[in-house]
Amino acid sequence: MARLVLAVMLLLNAAILCSGGITSEFVRLQESAVDMPLHADVFRMPPGYNAPQQVHITQGDHEGRSIIVSWITPSEKGSSTVFYGTSENKLDQHAEGTVTMYKFYTYTSGYIHHCVLTDLKYDRKYFYKVGEGSAARLFWFKTPPEVGPDVPYTFGLIGDLGQTFDSNVTLTHYESNPGGQAVLYVGDLSYADVYPDHDNVRWDTWGRFVERSTAYQPWIWTTGNHEIDYAPEIGEYVPFKPFTHRYHVPHKSSGSGSPFWYSIKRASAYIIVLASYSAFGKYTPQSEWLEQEFPKVNRSETPWLIVLMHSPLYNSYNYHYMEGETMRVMYEPLFVTYKVDVIFAGHVHAYERSYRISNVAYNITDGKCTPTSDLSAPVYITVGDGGNQEGLASSMTEPQPNYSAYREASFGHAIFGIKNRTHAYYNWYRNQDGNAVEADSLWFFNRVWNPREES
Amino acid sequence: MARLVLAVMLLLNAAILCSGGITSEFVRLQESAVDMPLHADVFRMPPGYNAPQQVHITQGDHEGRSIIVSWITPSEKGSSTVFYGTSENKLDQHAEGTVTMYKFYTYTSGYIHHCVLTDLKYDRKYFYKVGEGSAARLFWFKTPPEVGPDVPYTFGLIGDLGQTFDSNVTLTHYESNPGGQAVLYVGDLSYADVYPDHDNVRWDTWGRFVERSTAYQPWIWTTGNHEIDYAPEIGEYVPFKPFTHRYHVPHKSSGSGSPFWYSIKRASAYIIVLASYSAFGKYTPQSEWLEQEFPKVNRSETPWLIVLMHSPLYNSYNYHYMEGETMRVMYEPLFVTYKVDVIFAGHVHAYERSYRISNVAYNITDGKCTPTSDLSAPVYITVGDGGNQEGLASSMTEPQPNYSAYREASFGHAIFGIKNRTHAYYNWYRNQDGNAVEADSLWFFNRVWNPREES
Repeated sequence: MARLVLAVMLLLNAAILCSGGITSEFVRLQESAVDMPLHADVFRMPPGYNAPQQVHITQGDHEGRSIIVSWITPSEKGSSTVFYGTSENKLDQHAEGTVTMYKFYTYTSGYIHHCVLTDLKYDRKYFYKVGEGSAARLFWFKTPPEVGPDVPYTFGLIGDLGQTFDSNVTLTHYESNPGGQAVLYVGDLSYADVYPDHDNVRWDTWGRFVERSTAYQPWIWTTGNHEIDYAPEIGEYVPFKPFTHRYHVPHKSSGSGSPFWYSIKRASAYIIVLASYSAFGKYTPQSEWLEQEFPKVNRSETPWLIVLMHSPLYNSYNYHYMEGETMRVMYEPLFVTYKVDVIFAGHVHAYERSYRISNVAYNITDGKCTPTSDLSAPVYITVGDGGNQEGLASSMTEPQPNYSAYREASFGHAIFGIKNRTHAYYNWYRNQDGNAVEADSLWFFNRVWNPREES
Repeated sequence: MARLVLAVMLLLNAAILCSGGITSEFVRLQESAVDMPLHADVFRMPPGYNAPQQVHITQGDHEGRSIIVSWITPSEKGSSTVFYGTSENKLDQHAEGTVTMYKFYTYTSGYIHHCVLTDLKYDRKYFYKVGEGSAARLFWFKTPPEVGPDVPYTFGLIGDLGQTFDSNVTLTHYESNPGGQAVLYVGDLSYADVYPDHDNVRWDTWGRFVERSTAYQPWIWTTGNHEIDYAPEIGEYVPFKPFTHRYHVPHKSSGSGSPFWYSIKRASAYIIVLASYSAFGKYTPQSEWLEQEFPKVNRSETPWLIVLMHSPLYNSYNYHYMEGETMRVMYEPLFVTYKVDVIFAGHVHAYERSYRISNVAYNITDGKCTPTSDLSAPVYITVGDGGNQEGLASSMTEPQPNYSAYREASFGHAIFGIKNRTHAYYNWYRNQDGNAVEADSLWFFNRVWNPREES
């Protein structure tokens, strides 16, 4: 019976991939959030001996003029060279990458290549080629416009994706949405750690699954709890081992000593990535870095200040309730002082958006510990609704607390579309709807240039 | 003038070391907490070529039947063997250690030896010898009594010691106090990181300074912020590098994958060491370990449950105020649920003792965030008053909050003397007083076997 259901799901899924349409009947079948089987089309190896797979790109510097290209060759090391150029027929530049690999219990990774393409021109389409001979593969990406205060730019927001049939719907939905130019990914990638012995084959399948997007636009990575992969029971004591080998980020260019917290500028946005699962107490490297980071943000250059983290600071679901408190009491005062526009998080497998509220008056003896309206505060948005196998978080605290503006237990993704220094249009898309349906939307007013209350 | 003052201080200090007495006049001179100069007697190298120095011991297993002996040879590797036995004249056992070293910016450490002596008998005096030929050195230690519920045992408590004239007074005062059988050290050891480029020579001087105690009784180590030694400005990106090379702890025997959090049993006490400067959020290795650790504590075997950490959860000084909140909101519910008897911390350079209070009712919307009386809660004690160069924390929040039972900005140390399963006598000693003076004292009632309110 289970096999039959799976087969039906796969067929429906294939139909979606072909048609681009999503029916609500299909979604109802998907609510169980079942992982796609290893033989699913989306996990297929690219043809050719030692063909590069799991190709993904991310921003490679602080300003957006570099790209890190990463891929894996399964059989032998092969070439770490990326050939690239602005014409598909004339890849007249090349860069040399590095190769690494790792073992995890009984698993041995393929050859993981990372190559940084530097000194790119802004606002261009680049083509790039990885791999050798007949197994070479060609992709393309667009560099962002030069950093500036009124540069429109549109980010996709995805979290807790996993590799279920629902994950596939989410990704398809995002791809069919014409706006997204780069993805802000709020953590929990493959969920390999939920398989026996953290079966790292599921890191590979995930890399192949998302390649259809990650090879073409940068995904900005945040670490979630499913990246920790700490498994003393099988002798794996180094946290984040698979993630750090597979996913490189440009942390050094923002003065960070760790890939788990860093910042980038992209168009009119300044994006700070924080680590919910690294040390963040006072005096820790992350804390020292963050305290130095905020004063560097020039809102005349990048008006939009966005923070990404995995564990939400405001969450009214019964899942992971109050887990973000330990970071909130540390960093919320900074977020308010520096007028962060919006904080995106994942972790809770549902959707939620807060009002602009803060809870920073508490001094232990004053009893002031209730979230209150604050126009200097960020909006907190949870988009942990990518569709992973753990299923939807459907149980909410009741009544809906006053800090929570909108919440809904549906899978989906969001779009944050910056128009200029004063306005950004935000929308959350549910998987069960077509792209024309806006489940939750808001015109964001910039906290520095337009600090009014959003309607 | 400064040289003259230093000379006077040194003379006075020497006088103290000889006489064992401490005058209040002397202490007034010491309030500036000036580091002892490199040529101070306490930093002297032991005589002989390549003589072992900075000898220190700590518990080497979970039950107290092993000891880790550590020392440094400055000129060449030499021997890593420890010869030991229960008779000074018959060191009929030996164990082989390992040797490590590290570089830190322009500094290169000596040869750091760690050797575990296992299968010791309980409640015995052991003699041990390290080093070779005429430079060999003999020390001794006493193993604890077998673990059991009514075994008396007395712990010293020292924190934030540093290597000033005041540090020397604190250590002398502790040594002249006849009770202490092992030291629970609550973090911040050498303060080498406050010297230019974290001058690691100050790690060596500190090791030599405290040897007169650490070679003879186990010091149980906790990491403080001054152990982080994270210095990206000089290319040092690995947190805790000097500490982890120099100080080994028996973390593996309590199932911990990290030397920054672990537990030991000793006599009638179960001691849990936590890391204020490592990740401690939900799902992190420290958090996973701690959640599994508490249910393992058998209060019929070890009635006294003691937690050590560096940053205090309750602190009413203006220094480091509320820094412990980020860990408090994570772990306080566990401490109350599992009826921890007492939590010792350092960090604030002063002394403070709390009432039994908790602040665990908060659920974000209920406004319940005031510390209230709770007989299941630990007493929180800050003993960051070892005497380091940063000086005393003399400014307090006013009025004294209701959770604070006693606070005083004086240097000192404390003694926690377990009598049986129901009673322990606790006392804080101020440096300016003789040992007969009890500045703050309390009969502790065990939270499981005698859960009444202490008077």
